[in-house]
Amino acid sequence: MPPTITLLSDFGSADGFPAAIKAGILKRLPDATFIDITHDIAPQNVAAASFVLGQVAPRFPARTVHLAVVDPGVGSDRVPLILISPGGHKYVAPDNGLLTHVVAHSGPLKNVPHEHGFLEPYRAEVPDRWAAYEIDPGRAASELSNTFHGRDLFGPVAALLAHGAAPQGLGDRVGEITCLNVPGPSSGGDSLSGRIQYIDHFGNAATNIREADLTDIEIIVACRKFVADGPVDSYAAASGPGAIIASHGFLELFETNGSAAARYSLAVGDRVTVTSRVEA
Amino acid sequence: MPPTITLLSDFGSADGFPAAIKAGILKRLPDATFIDITHDIAPQNVAAASFVLGQVAPRFPARTVHLAVVDPGVGSDRVPLILISPGGHKYVAPDNGLLTHVVAHSGPLKNVPHEHGFLEPYRAEVPDRWAAYEIDPGRAASELSNTFHGRDLFGPVAALLAHGAAPQGLGDRVGEITCLNVPGPSSGGDSLSGRIQYIDHFGNAATNIREADLTDIEIIVACRKFVADGPVDSYAAASGPGAIIASHGFLELFETNGSAAARYSLAVGDRVTVTSRVEA
Amino acid sequence: MPPTITLLSDFGSADGFPAAIKAGILKRLPDATFIDITHDIAPQNVAAASFVLGQVAPRFPARTVHLAVVDPGVGSDRVPLILISPGGHKYVAPDNGLLTHVVAHSGPLKNVPHEHGFLEPYRAEVPDRWAAYEIDPGRAASELSNTFHGRDLFGPVAALLAHGAAPQGLGDRVGEITCLNVPGPSSGGDSLSGRIQYIDHFGNAATNIREADLTDIEIIVACRKFVADGPVDSYAAASGPGAIIASHGFLELFETNGSAAARYSLAVGDRVTVTSRVEA
Repeated sequence: MPPTITLLSDFGSADGFPAAIKAGILKRLPDATFIDITHDIAPQNVAAASFVLGQVAPRFPARTVHLAVVDPGVGSDRVPLILISPGGHKYVAPDNGLLTHVVAHSGPLKNVPHEHGFLEPYRAEVPDRWAAYEIDPGRAASELSNTFHGRDLFGPVAALLAHGAAPQGLGDRVGEITCLNVPGPSSGGDSLSGRIQYIDHFGNAATNIREADLTDIEIIVACRKFVADGPVDSYAAASGPGAIIASHGFLELFETNGSAAARYSLAVGDRVTVTSRVEA
Repeated sequence: MPPTITLLSDFGSADGFPAAIKAGILKRLPDATFIDITHDIAPQNVAAASFVLGQVAPRFPARTVHLAVVDPGVGSDRVPLILISPGGHKYVAPDNGLLTHVVAHSGPLKNVPHEHGFLEPYRAEVPDRWAAYEIDPGRAASELSNTFHGRDLFGPVAALLAHGAAPQGLGDRVGEITCLNVPGPSSGGDSLSGRIQYIDHFGNAATNIREADLTDIEIIVACRKFVADGPVDSYAAASGPGAIIASHGFLELFETNGSAAARYSLAVGDRVTVTSRVEA
Repeated sequence: MPPTITLLSDFGSADGFPAAIKAGILKRLPDATFIDITHDIAPQNVAAASFVLGQVAPRFPARTVHLAVVDPGVGSDRVPLILISPGGHKYVAPDNGLLTHVVAHSGPLKNVPHEHGFLEPYRAEVPDRWAAYEIDPGRAASELSNTFHGRDLFGPVAALLAHGAAPQGLGDRVGEITCLNVPGPSSGGDSLSGRIQYIDHFGNAATNIREADLTDIEIIVACRKFVADGPVDSYAAASGPGAIIASHGFLELFETNGSAAARYSLAVGDRVTVTSRVEA
């Protein structure tokens, strides 16, 4: 049985684009099996796609092939990539920052430019023990449309990798890939200053602040009109706004049985301030 | 081949939560296969989830494992359950009423409190030939986040059950589970009084009135501004509002080529009155 | 391993209807495997369903069974069909025009009535080397609800076909099926006049104009408030409105990083005019 192929995209659910990719893979690899991570990333939202991919893909068994296509630059000269993780996961994606959160699992990324904006793309060194390859379309695709490289290029490459093809046969190794700037929080005086980096379907807002960043277990979390004591141990432990270390490991702003994002007009990029409840 | 694992939740389609559950299951059971029942239950709507689960899950082959997670009480002291049906279906879910319609297939539930509100939860006896177990997290989960027991607890339990583990090895047997009050219609004089219990994607409104409850084959069905003769034999047999015995076995209010719920402002819980078209 | 069964419908994602179909198929064919093409066709939109099915289904391997259910006439006397393509694909669908774009891959359809409206249904000859059968429900379904033939009839037929049953055992051969009128563009003087035939999730609008229909490589494309030079080679090559030969092979109207349909109020059926940029 070949390894599972996962799919993540902004193709939506109405038009059958993911099924067209799977059809092409099944023609090359009749016993392929698929898991959809999501196809409902907001159109062209590479940052959201990267966050979800980083949360979910590394949880699959080793050897899993991950096909990720949020690709506003399709048909331009943006590079198609294969990325191999130290654990043996194989990622196929356009080189536009989509792999940021996957790579960030290895630790802080190098060569982030100073004064670089939140989520701004830059060229990052491929970390030790990872390997990246620039796909040569001529070695993988028989025909390439202008608009759907998920079907015409990334899908066939995923099929080849799932079948056991070596990535070095599909492209040349490269030393840098595009990443988005996803810094950790900064601390100043008595407070910690972070950002909202992802808002989920429930309206819960994930910050970039990890449990280890907190210097106190009794905190006040504030962002726009949202203010809550925290962190609590369960969504049911607050009534109204609350803050919790959620399943992704980040401090999350939530509203019990409601949407924090809608209620407090929270958006990705918003500053989140954490202060101690105990006076110094 | 292990039995199919079905999944039902309110996780939505954007964030990859169901895929994170599947990833964990595949690590434990590499040849697991999945069918998604739905992940688009409205957030925290346990009653809707229960209706859909009750309609769909029992149609799967015996031995199927059903993972159902609509879980506003995640992280609190609500109990995680395994429920085994007489036909050999295995359900894994929080004990919050989600299994109501599955259990109701065995007949009317016992110990419903008098004067209990529609959809109000209560403690129900586990029916004869069914078996319920309170999952002991220590026997199934290696690590438990505050917010995502679908991934950290229910998923691993589903993997173990699909692999053939005995439920009594995962928790202690219990005699009661939480159910929602889903009464049948009441009859008074010449009329039958029921409720809308589910509204689907097309805006069709399912009542709690079954064909066997109808004492006449020529009826008038009314609910708010909706009035229709019925029951008809096909959606195409009415123009405008209509009433039909639908595929779930309940009397359903519909609008031909439109949404009855939107057009007549129908909501779950609304009273539906059925009277005879023939004067007595 | 039986061939893949694909599913396409307007059942939406919330109610579990596709899973109910799959449950019934798994009971008949325990090792069935499924690919969802989409279940998010707009309710009762047979034309959109036909376009998506025609784009995606033929890309699957030969022998694939395609179950397509957008069925406003369910329960009426509309005919249930099996259609076998020259390449060995097996389609199961109501006879309401859903198979139009699949059949149109064989070339222009015959007996289109003169002066027939865009997307208007008519009776078309089954093309050479294709075979159509009117399903006899008595030979395939054990019980037939009023409202859900996807579950009660089309699903069981798909299971039988995937198991290797001969279509002639399930119904009688017929010579005509219902198709929608999907004409090509018309040319008059210096311009080409086409139609928008599908709008996708990104708001990209597919016309019925193919690359081969264009007599010039430098064109101006206009539709309502949309005007663009074209065709370009990538979405990134335009800023604002653009026109491109997209992955479906048709000229497509798009807006870079936006929705052309929303921005220019484009709708299916709208006239699209193509003129040469070079003066004659």
